[in-house]
Amino acid sequence: MKKNLGAKSWIYPEPVLIIAVYDENNNANAMNVAWGGIADENRISICISPEHKTLKNILVKKAFSISIGDVKNVVACDFVGIVSANDDVDKMKKSGFHFTKAKNVEAPLIDELPFALECKLISYDEKSCCCLGEIVNVCADENILHHVGKIDLIKFEPLIYDPCNHDY
Amino acid sequence: MKKNLGAKSWIYPEPVLIIAVYDENNNANAMNVAWGGIADENRISICISPEHKTLKNILVKKAFSISIGDVKNVVACDFVGIVSANDDVDKMKKSGFHFTKAKNVEAPLIDELPFALECKLISYDEKSCCCLGEIVNVCADENILHHVGKIDLIKFEPLIYDPCNHDY
Repeated sequence: MKKNLGAKSWIYPEPVLIIAVYDENNNANAMNVAWGGIADENRISICISPEHKTLKNILVKKAFSISIGDVKNVVACDFVGIVSANDDVDKMKKSGFHFTKAKNVEAPLIDELPFALECKLISYDEKSCCCLGEIVNVCADENILHHVGKIDLIKFEPLIYDPCNHDY
Repeated sequence: MKKNLGAKSWIYPEPVLIIAVYDENNNANAMNVAWGGIADENRISICISPEHKTLKNILVKKAFSISIGDVKNVVACDFVGIVSANDDVDKMKKSGFHFTKAKNVEAPLIDELPFALECKLISYDEKSCCCLGEIVNVCADENILHHVGKIDLIKFEPLIYDPCNHDY
């Protein structure tokens, strides 16, 4: 017999997706999103509301990266989720994250996070807040790969968000 | 310096979502989906192609449940992902899963899986394979809750899918 908990936005596991994008002056910005997932072969869907600076930048640049938050960088990953660049112009400096331009899209990669998706914007729907991206490349630091060139989950420790208890 | 791995449908963690639905004769059926996530306040998005029996049933019943695969039931969760009810009419009997009708929607809950979302169909888009559902209730077995009525991740062990190595 199951206990009813009401209408909640909870699935397990929820990922910790760090979206990074350049603004109109080519300054890198990043934010933390838990509502998203693979939406089809080589497509990712992210729920992001229109007031976010990140979303405005995505609509200008038509590109973004999604890095996967990991255990080693939990403080910085959380920080970019709770502080908005609309309120604090020094957000990225304070986060401790550093950026390098992605090879395949006009978007920054976060140096500290070892796994990332390079994405081109397909569409954004303001009503549903659905930002749909084409995954044009996946890239990873050598030190999270095992010898056959695949992701090694002993070396790579992705964060998992617990939406019920607001914890990682 | 990151190594390029090509255009892949990989994020970490990917969930193991077991969708359950009644067919036109009110027989319960279930399948395993990794491509999905929370899409907005009380909404979930699932990528499911039109040939699946589950999808046909969702379009008839306008309702479905999503249970979260857990460690204890990994064999059954994997089984309902690799066998289609289009090919094996005894799929559900062989899976070992048992069903009880959900309280709030016309869909079955899986008795063996302790956490589930009850969903109403909002829309299905054949082109993108995007099935959008409204989460009308979340329900959980008492034995995965701690004393304040929240999910206890010591007691509940959700499966995590590793899309690169095809493993849990």
